Amino acid sequence: MTNGKKIVIVGGGASGGTTAQFARKTDRTAAITIFEKGAYPHYSKCGLPYAIAGTVPDFLNLIEFSEEYFNKEHIELFLQATVNDIDLKHRTVIANKGTESITREFDALVLATGSLPTVPPVQNIQLNNRFHSGIHVLRTIDDGRAILNEIRKGKKATIIGAGLIGLEMADTLHKKGMQVTVVEALPSILAATLDVDMSDLVREIIQEHVTLYTNHFATRIQEKHGVVTHLVIQNRETNEEISIETDLCVIATGTKPETMLAKRIGCAIGKTGGILVNDNAETSVKNVYAVGDCTEYRDFVTGEPICVGLGSIGVRQGIAAGTNAAGGTYSLPKGLLMSRTSKFFGVEIAAVGPTQDSLKNKIMTTGKYKGSSLPDYFPGGEPITMKIHIEEPSGRILAAQAVGSNAAQRINVYACAILNTLTVDDVRKMETTYAPPIAPTLDTLTLVGDVVALKRARKKREP
Amino acid sequence: MTNGKKIVIVGGGASGGTTAQFARKTDRTAAITIFEKGAYPHYSKCGLPYAIAGTVPDFLNLIEFSEEYFNKEHIELFLQATVNDIDLKHRTVIANKGTESITREFDALVLATGSLPTVPPVQNIQLNNRFHSGIHVLRTIDDGRAILNEIRKGKKATIIGAGLIGLEMADTLHKKGMQVTVVEALPSILAATLDVDMSDLVREIIQEHVTLYTNHFATRIQEKHGVVTHLVIQNRETNEEISIETDLCVIATGTKPETMLAKRIGCAIGKTGGILVNDNAETSVKNVYAVGDCTEYRDFVTGEPICVGLGSIGVRQGIAAGTNAAGGTYSLPKGLLMSRTSKFFGVEIAAVGPTQDSLKNKIMTTGKYKGSSLPDYFPGGEPITMKIHIEEPSGRILAAQAVGSNAAQRINVYACAILNTLTVDDVRKMETTYAPPIAPTLDTLTLVGDVVALKRARKKREP
Repeated sequence: MTNGKKIVIVGGGASGGTTAQFARKTDRTAAITIFEKGAYPHYSKCGLPYAIAGTVPDFLNLIEFSEEYFNKEHIELFLQATVNDIDLKHRTVIANKGTESITREFDALVLATGSLPTVPPVQNIQLNNRFHSGIHVLRTIDDGRAILNEIRKGKKATIIGAGLIGLEMADTLHKKGMQVTVVEALPSILAATLDVDMSDLVREIIQEHVTLYTNHFATRIQEKHGVVTHLVIQNRETNEEISIETDLCVIATGTKPETMLAKRIGCAIGKTGGILVNDNAETSVKNVYAVGDCTEYRDFVTGEPICVGLGSIGVRQGIAAGTNAAGGTYSLPKGLLMSRTSKFFGVEIAAVGPTQDSLKNKIMTTGKYKGSSLPDYFPGGEPITMKIHIEEPSGRILAAQAVGSNAAQRINVYACAILNTLTVDDVRKMETTYAPPIAPTLDTLTLVGDVVALKRARKKREP
Repeated sequence: MTNGKKIVIVGGGASGGTTAQFARKTDRTAAITIFEKGAYPHYSKCGLPYAIAGTVPDFLNLIEFSEEYFNKEHIELFLQATVNDIDLKHRTVIANKGTESITREFDALVLATGSLPTVPPVQNIQLNNRFHSGIHVLRTIDDGRAILNEIRKGKKATIIGAGLIGLEMADTLHKKGMQVTVVEALPSILAATLDVDMSDLVREIIQEHVTLYTNHFATRIQEKHGVVTHLVIQNRETNEEISIETDLCVIATGTKPETMLAKRIGCAIGKTGGILVNDNAETSVKNVYAVGDCTEYRDFVTGEPICVGLGSIGVRQGIAAGTNAAGGTYSLPKGLLMSRTSKFFGVEIAAVGPTQDSLKNKIMTTGKYKGSSLPDYFPGGEPITMKIHIEEPSGRILAAQAVGSNAAQRINVYACAILNTLTVDDVRKMETTYAPPIAPTLDTLTLVGDVVALKRARKKREP
């Protein structure tokens, strides 16, 4: 097994684990080593809210590739092993596992160091650099277990941040019988995912189940004997304060790339704070790759730098890095579509491409259509609302959003369209699959394109 | 309302009805007349099996646009009005409704005459040009009502033809508590929809619920006092006969275009027997359009003539014919994708593009992948198998098929890809939407493309 390349991967999450797998697929003789600082092999971070909810019965179910798997594939995996030093000149990585020091040489190095939760500036949230009891972030299985351990039916939970993870946790804690309050500093929920008019559809549904404060800062924590008792929030316009009784507080205000090692070895860091990578998952340093949440790539539509931040993209970068590091060839598309989806309180949402805010420099036509998942006469149809932004005068589709039935698979059509720079006319005349128990004769998927076409025709007539 | 064009539409089904609606949208002043020989306005033929099943509570629920609707839109609708004569020279249509004769002039004529069920050459199926009691086709609400009237729990039903409608009816009659036997002359079921290996997945499931004979001709009917008692079928290889006791026999062996009027006024008829139309839904005769099941267009992928035969396509032709007849402009894509879907016995199927048989002159690479609708660790995942054919050496996607979870919406991605002549590499690297309760990190949608890519890479290495 020693004829092939020596590949060392720092970080054994989904991106790092995938890198190892594709390195192995590419070269059966490569020597592949993973150093992972946590206690678990390749697992699904995105599954954590569902393991807390009990939908996934046990946290260990989230492990997608076990130690046995890596062993069988002759991939050396060190858990609870921290990499403190990389010697670029001598191409060695030095890791510490307990009192043991492990050194591995590399021909190719892959940084899969992930991200760290950002903690908002909330007064008294920490004591001696530790959160008060009852306050948690959610990044690891251990975080998930700690939260599960604090869930009590009928008790009160607050969530700071109304993004995807915040709302997934709101649903989870609500399902567990807690009284949930969500606090969001921005005027709307899901601001990175949906335009305001689309997220308002979700908001209506969420507010039937939880208390939601948008446009409110979380300002300070009140505690008793080191245990959180209240979260104080402040209206950003009126400065009015509200004190919310809370037994459990989950911080879900996003993450920042973990780039300490990358900086130390001179990898260029991008505007968003992530390690700059290209379409081969290469950093600015030769033979050093980076994948997943620690990286910055560019947005396919705007060309602007963007943090990767989605597991599905990290895995794709892992395919590229693993294949390329082992001597194969795999290029990623020229930018990120940021295809995304989630489901909470029974409503499925999905989107691809930038939100309206990130497209404000473009001349666009926008269409929105609310349809049903089934023909009107067929029982069980569910609403589906779609919205698309197209560029003028080209007609190129820039972004699409969906709230409702099968939002995710409907958005995949637009992901394909955007990746291939198709126009609204290329898509709206497609034959969609039709059968009464499955989809209507004309699907919202293309009807939203017809709305855009109609607007454009009107603009031409009335310039 | 008399300044606009005079448009006469023969046939008020979904294609004809849609034509009228889009003519009205295009010109508020057009004089629009529909002559429909049946008793019901614009209804969903595809919904008939579900009205028989009781999923749709009443046959009249299938009416998607009522007489009131057409009245409100100032579209003149004559039901039970048969068109016997068209005078092309004087641009008039003469219809009979009861004893009344109605004459309308036209600037544009639209033929939406639909299709007639084909009846296989089964001995003794008819007496004096009428089926024996207990034998039915399913094309109209009246047919549906007649079938419903004969359904008896515990009694025996046979279906001739294992296409989409045959299997939808098998599911319906099974749900109604009948013992169902399906007879198919071809060696496989769903031969126009899926390749054999894909339809075999469906077959396994169907055979848990009904008796299925493929490769068997229906040869003769036995009856007593004019009421069917047995269907005799014959093995095409061994010639062995089986007599199947039957209380109800449904013929679902397809349809043929109804072109009598079209022929009479000189419209060119294509190889498949349908009225030849172009991308504007125009026939060979000036100012005469045709839409829906009575027409022939071309297959997008092979360029071969193809019968329209799908309601969703007829509706799209109706949009074109209505818009163009009223003076607007609407062109259809250069061919038919034949996007199709259905669901029976709990399994969803979908496909786009020709089956393998129709692609036999192409040099192709084919990929198949069986995945799950959800990550492996997430409860409730359902199987989804996809198969794609791509052209060599271009890599262009020619066809895609799916059996399982969300088959229809997954196939829509390939409908978009095929319509825009994308290659497998254009599609397989797209970011699909991912979240644990919705879809896996890497979806079968693109993994099936990876299978093709792997095969192609191997072929290159081992030529």
